[in-house]
Amino acid sequence: MNRVNLALLQMKVESDVEANLTKLAERLGQLPQGTDLVVLPEMFVCPYETPNFPRYAQTRGEAVWQRLSDLARQHGIWLCAGSVPELDGGKVYNTSYVFDRSGREVARHRKVHLFDVNVPGGICFRESDTLTPGDEITVFDSEFGKIGLMICFDIRFPEQTRIMAERGARLVLVPAAFNLTTGPAHWDLSFRARALDNQLFLAGCSPARDLTASYHAYGHSLITGPWGDIRAQLDETEGMLSAAIDLDDCEAIRQGLPLLRSRRPELYR
Amino acid sequence: MNRVNLALLQMKVESDVEANLTKLAERLGQLPQGTDLVVLPEMFVCPYETPNFPRYAQTRGEAVWQRLSDLARQHGIWLCAGSVPELDGGKVYNTSYVFDRSGREVARHRKVHLFDVNVPGGICFRESDTLTPGDEITVFDSEFGKIGLMICFDIRFPEQTRIMAERGARLVLVPAAFNLTTGPAHWDLSFRARALDNQLFLAGCSPARDLTASYHAYGHSLITGPWGDIRAQLDETEGMLSAAIDLDDCEAIRQGLPLLRSRRPELYR
Repeated sequence: MNRVNLALLQMKVESDVEANLTKLAERLGQLPQGTDLVVLPEMFVCPYETPNFPRYAQTRGEAVWQRLSDLARQHGIWLCAGSVPELDGGKVYNTSYVFDRSGREVARHRKVHLFDVNVPGGICFRESDTLTPGDEITVFDSEFGKIGLMICFDIRFPEQTRIMAERGARLVLVPAAFNLTTGPAHWDLSFRARALDNQLFLAGCSPARDLTASYHAYGHSLITGPWGDIRAQLDETEGMLSAAIDLDDCEAIRQGLPLLRSRRPELYR
Repeated sequence: MNRVNLALLQMKVESDVEANLTKLAERLGQLPQGTDLVVLPEMFVCPYETPNFPRYAQTRGEAVWQRLSDLARQHGIWLCAGSVPELDGGKVYNTSYVFDRSGREVARHRKVHLFDVNVPGGICFRESDTLTPGDEITVFDSEFGKIGLMICFDIRFPEQTRIMAERGARLVLVPAAFNLTTGPAHWDLSFRARALDNQLFLAGCSPARDLTASYHAYGHSLITGPWGDIRAQLDETEGMLSAAIDLDDCEAIRQGLPLLRSRRPELYR
């Protein structure tokens, strides 16, 4: 299977977990026929504020996890369930679960690079106030081949996508929430660059912008292709981005412009 | 010295070596007062065609090298002399020499990643038909601190600029000649991405476009800054791009958005 029907759900995040899950269930009922893989935004059950992460955190297997698994099974889809605050051993992680069509968890990624920034006149945020970083780069098997999984700030580090490509990923899923400082300057650029350098697809799903929230998400969920092009993109409002991609495009482009094959790893030590 | 007055000379390449050097000497006579560092295009003495590389090749210290050294000294500038075909031990390299204000050679970079591509309906070129790749990543000391040096296709490989940043470069010079297939799609994107990911400056100098030549250069010489922004850029015609940059901008941006400090090298093995 090289053709994948993707749907990215750019939703506004409510402060009530149940409201977010109800909205998700409604949107999944509106998926285009034949949707294979759905991607949700970073922290889609919980407004993006550091005090909220421990407050909303649940363990793997708890109610939110179970609900997501059920939804994947009911709709017969692969569900990259954005990210949620995960509680484990007294620590809280920014975690993305992926479920297959039967509702089985097939991947879990804990954000590896925490978002600790303080841009003068721009954005200030410190995830590390309440979150612990993960320690693994995540690539999982699927009926579409290998898929990479990372969260938001992870995309800033070219090493991570490169390792995913080396492990065979042709598609990388990125629940994310850039803001109004870094979004206009760096969102498209980062997705296009990772796609081009590694000649693979990326799908970045953001929350919709909510100017009544304390954190203003950039939105602009998008899919970038292996030529570094934007295949499809939303604006900042709520919406669903659905698009079909053909993973064989990666090989076609790698054939003509052999970037991965032309690397000189012996010089990169 | 953190302020650098840069000038990029986007020249059309003639088939006569002497004509190219004469034009260069003229242009250097027109530099803005206080120019510190001049960057020239890839293969600026020799039309970019594989049979030309051995035909035009000279050894280090031979006439072209000497002329470049003399020009640096006469004008009291740092001269990143684009690239020229270099003959050494029967092999030919795509080589960039850098001379300081006294005409002393302070760096030599041999293109590490040869341009061997065949994009259907687009560009087909095989540097390896006549060229040998270099084996070193090049960073040199200057009165402006560490400067990285690479040539065209080298920019495709994020590892190379990353290593330069790790070695302390805040400016990377890139003589280059993208074409009408990859230029519109990838030129700006590649320079902006390397600048953003490593929070440093890049200066990319292309030949001007010549539609009577067999290889049509994209032009669009540019300077990108550590926020991933384009600081200055030419179109495709002959011209000089002069701009002042302040290398302290790198620290200011690295302070607020600490990408280099937030890396997780232990996970990138």
